[in-house]
Amino acid sequence: MNTDNEVRVVFRPAGRSARVPAGTLVTEAAAQVGVAIEQVCGGKGTCGKCKVKALSNGLGPLTDSERKHLSEQEIADGFRLACQATILQDASIEVGWASATAGVSILVEGLLEPVALDPLVKKTAVQVPRATLEDQVADYEALRRVLPTDHGAPRAMVNALRELPGALRAADGLLTAVHSAGLLLSVEPGDTRNQLYGFACDIGTTTVVGYLLDLNTGQRLAVASTLNPQTRFGDDVVSRIDVAQRDAAGLEALRSVIVEAINDLIGQTAKKARIKREQVYALSIVGNTCMHHLFLGLSPAALGRSPYVPVIASPLQLNANEVGLQAHPAAQLFVLPNIAGFVGADTVGVLLATRLMQSDEVRLAIDIGTNGEMVLGSRSRMLACSTAAGPAFEGAQLAYGMRAADGAVDHVDVVDGDVILHSIGRGKLRGICGSGVVDAIAALRRLEIIDPTGRLLPREEVESCGGNKKLAERLIPHAQGGAVVLAPAERTAIGGPLLLTQRDIRQIQLAKGAIRAGIEILMKELAVEPEQVVEVCLAGAFGNYIRPASALTIGLMPRFPRAAITPVGNAAGSGAQMALLSRQAWQEAARLWTEVEYIELSLRQDFQQVFMDAIMM
Amino acid sequence: MNTDNEVRVVFRPAGRSARVPAGTLVTEAAAQVGVAIEQVCGGKGTCGKCKVKALSNGLGPLTDSERKHLSEQEIADGFRLACQATILQDASIEVGWASATAGVSILVEGLLEPVALDPLVKKTAVQVPRATLEDQVADYEALRRVLPTDHGAPRAMVNALRELPGALRAADGLLTAVHSAGLLLSVEPGDTRNQLYGFACDIGTTTVVGYLLDLNTGQRLAVASTLNPQTRFGDDVVSRIDVAQRDAAGLEALRSVIVEAINDLIGQTAKKARIKREQVYALSIVGNTCMHHLFLGLSPAALGRSPYVPVIASPLQLNANEVGLQAHPAAQLFVLPNIAGFVGADTVGVLLATRLMQSDEVRLAIDIGTNGEMVLGSRSRMLACSTAAGPAFEGAQLAYGMRAADGAVDHVDVVDGDVILHSIGRGKLRGICGSGVVDAIAALRRLEIIDPTGRLLPREEVESCGGNKKLAERLIPHAQGGAVVLAPAERTAIGGPLLLTQRDIRQIQLAKGAIRAGIEILMKELAVEPEQVVEVCLAGAFGNYIRPASALTIGLMPRFPRAAITPVGNAAGSGAQMALLSRQAWQEAARLWTEVEYIELSLRQDFQQVFMDAIMM
Repeated sequence: MNTDNEVRVVFRPAGRSARVPAGTLVTEAAAQVGVAIEQVCGGKGTCGKCKVKALSNGLGPLTDSERKHLSEQEIADGFRLACQATILQDASIEVGWASATAGVSILVEGLLEPVALDPLVKKTAVQVPRATLEDQVADYEALRRVLPTDHGAPRAMVNALRELPGALRAADGLLTAVHSAGLLLSVEPGDTRNQLYGFACDIGTTTVVGYLLDLNTGQRLAVASTLNPQTRFGDDVVSRIDVAQRDAAGLEALRSVIVEAINDLIGQTAKKARIKREQVYALSIVGNTCMHHLFLGLSPAALGRSPYVPVIASPLQLNANEVGLQAHPAAQLFVLPNIAGFVGADTVGVLLATRLMQSDEVRLAIDIGTNGEMVLGSRSRMLACSTAAGPAFEGAQLAYGMRAADGAVDHVDVVDGDVILHSIGRGKLRGICGSGVVDAIAALRRLEIIDPTGRLLPREEVESCGGNKKLAERLIPHAQGGAVVLAPAERTAIGGPLLLTQRDIRQIQLAKGAIRAGIEILMKELAVEPEQVVEVCLAGAFGNYIRPASALTIGLMPRFPRAAITPVGNAAGSGAQMALLSRQAWQEAARLWTEVEYIELSLRQDFQQVFMDAIMM
Repeated sequence: MNTDNEVRVVFRPAGRSARVPAGTLVTEAAAQVGVAIEQVCGGKGTCGKCKVKALSNGLGPLTDSERKHLSEQEIADGFRLACQATILQDASIEVGWASATAGVSILVEGLLEPVALDPLVKKTAVQVPRATLEDQVADYEALRRVLPTDHGAPRAMVNALRELPGALRAADGLLTAVHSAGLLLSVEPGDTRNQLYGFACDIGTTTVVGYLLDLNTGQRLAVASTLNPQTRFGDDVVSRIDVAQRDAAGLEALRSVIVEAINDLIGQTAKKARIKREQVYALSIVGNTCMHHLFLGLSPAALGRSPYVPVIASPLQLNANEVGLQAHPAAQLFVLPNIAGFVGADTVGVLLATRLMQSDEVRLAIDIGTNGEMVLGSRSRMLACSTAAGPAFEGAQLAYGMRAADGAVDHVDVVDGDVILHSIGRGKLRGICGSGVVDAIAALRRLEIIDPTGRLLPREEVESCGGNKKLAERLIPHAQGGAVVLAPAERTAIGGPLLLTQRDIRQIQLAKGAIRAGIEILMKELAVEPEQVVEVCLAGAFGNYIRPASALTIGLMPRFPRAAITPVGNAAGSGAQMALLSRQAWQEAARLWTEVEYIELSLRQDFQQVFMDAIMM
């Protein structure tokens, strides 16, 4: 590959950049760095959906298809079709929100432990006796007489009182009270107990997933997901903190787009389940501490600087409409607690789903994203920490890295010197995602083509040591310290071969070293030996797709001789659902934030040494 | 007086009508029936403020002053100046809200028992220690550590959390928490404890009074009052129930005008006290059950028909902005409880102010308006009832009755056959208000010119029995069964003499009979003899202005040989203020609605007989 022919393209507002051969299509470059662009027609130039805006010169001439699908004004404004426009020189391209949603596979499934159904909002049907002159009981007090007392002192929302006289007289005193911990939310005439719905939401930095639940059965009726629209303002937590602390408008913009996105998910799931959003009476939210804060309109500024403190850790019960959510006007929102500035309500969700706090033996839960959060412990003591793994496991900052989207290599095997690739979708290869990179590095490490320090041996060295000849041929010089050819140019859609570079290996070493060091510190602090750990729960998309064997080979985690390694999927989302379905789970969540001990790694004198050791493979 | 020359005028929307001599000014007729019309220039026709709208023909020709102050469009639309236009034939006149507010004296003062200051909303200044890497406590939890725990589980309003990081860092951790029973309302940077304000409001059927309080000192900083703008929709409770149950728009119209009026009083009192309305953190409301319901937007329909039940009796704590009140966005509203459909939160306020529930001996509290509510009892047992006294005591439905406004005779004495009148303001007489009528009837009863059945003796009978000759001359024939001339035409502004008619006496007999019968039934039920009652507290405007001796003479209440008769002024408003200043008072109020036993008079077999006896004088 002639690097003289490479050009640099930056995608805004995500801020991701890629070096691609001159002449690469915008869609190809975007896929390579995990920027998704909607292509309904599959890149044929017939649907006109993949509009992007050129923020600089550097793109090739307009094609006929673009002239057909873009208005004169759009052309004047710099709009292009991403599947048509080629990148000839360094360029900067803005990808609008509307076209950035498709093609990325969002992990929605998660381990859903069975819970004893005891939802946070309940319906009770009662026959309220008529008041008489002898017993002139007020409507509300008459209802309270026959309504089983729930937890807490009885209170009523004004709207419920406004509905009460009508509901009471509409069906001869038969009505259904909707209540939550002693708070009367609403009254409905007749017996409507069979309609009771809740909505659980996991706000990720990158993706947002919403689950519509039947609170009577615990059944999931519908699920919907979307990219987090805040990515417009910055890809990662740090850049969003920057926007939010710049001024009140920045925070408000971040708040309103995520609230709008969640409202959209409520609407989508309600539509799929053929109910009205006004029938949703209970909602739960998990997210990392920054997402939690931005959603509630709380400044995340203090999260971004030492000592990294949240505004609030404790759980919250709010009126959903107080924070702009559109469901029943009296719907209650349950916000799971945070543990620390970088161990948020999403980790609490993971803990609920993995039942760590109920375990007699030591378990480890890891949620790997841009940050890796991990909790180690059992019923008697739980320790948590967070490490800045960086986005390498999400495919970012790798030469050919991309998200787990169409065209991404997600698994790599080396058999008899042949490199066998597995990719997402049926098209040509566009890049490699986190699980694929880890597989590739693990395979090369096992063949000693990568040494324990992470050095990629040059072709000559492999050949001279009698290494596999076919593999040795794949080792090529590269500006990033050498590279391995994973796939030749003819198998890719990126105008050249798919490579894994020495720099990529270093990125992965830093990322896995951070995770590994966190685990080692937690084990030291808890005085736990590897033999004592009985299960490792891997949460999140990366944890779900990664092969345990590869993770162990690269040393992402220590070898736990007795431990089962369990991918638990979107466990944060599972935890949010469990809280909604079970008051006991919600109460456990409310305890978790005080019970889990947070270990601040930056305070550990031993962290640097542990980290250096952890980088080795 | 030649009744052939009388014409009938109806004032809309109040629905009050009067028979007046042809040629009477609209302002005079209005004053006579208690319809207040603003007259800045005192009726000289120079200010143009007294605009009314003729809904029918029947008024005299336009004067020069009217041509000057009314636009052509206004003249075309039927507008007139009330101080200029004369009534020549039967007429119907609409009095706008804006011109109906002035001139009526609204009772705002009330007995304010000293309370131990413990306001429902408190401020606490705290120095919150900085978080460190060793102690990464979240802002809210850091605040909770140093904030003395209040009642109940700690909760926070979202707005308080939004303010928290800024407030915490603005003054190096010194901040003032505003809280109510464990609910954090707001945080202010620095020490702002010296600014803590509350607003108490008494919503009467006719008048609304608001009190701005310094919750640190218990001092009243400002007071403001207004006519209840709902009078536009109907003068009394029953007509407003009609409007409210007609459709949702009717209820909403009644709700929104009273909320608007209260917001206006908050603004007026805040301005007088030179604070901002956003500094008001606590509000309390009393009112009769119907006013309570209309203010909250609860249907009063069931109050208007047997078995006369409210939507809710229990006390409510709400976010003030939830019901549209404009104060601090997190301000808490405390709505005092109702006892029954016709014994509302205003009576609870009266009980708080009179301390009936703390009395070892039996006391009687009476609040006389269109309905008379009374509570008899002591610490050990309290009974309440309500009787439909009608509006006679407020001056309505009497031939020359009017509210206690400028020009109203409010006290009458007869000394040596001379009738000595006391009136409000310095102008000519316009009518007679409740306390004046009671005085007049009492004086005539003592002189046996009215007999025990309430019959007004004709002149001949008085003279033949050797009664006072000067008084006898005042007895004249009248279509309403005879009349007494209280003042000759030259002393009045109504174009004729001021009369008390036989029909007026009957109206007062019915009203006082209802009150008296209520008292008698309560005494029977509680098995209390008159000697056991140690105090009679008279609440409300009428109770405040009436002379105890006159009330006893006409038999409004039994003779209680040991009882002090104490006018307690606007005791409902006093109770609202006490609740705001003292959590103990609020908690007493919360108990009162269950402890006071309501006696439904319509269920009493003995009521008719007691009532017939009670009519006698």
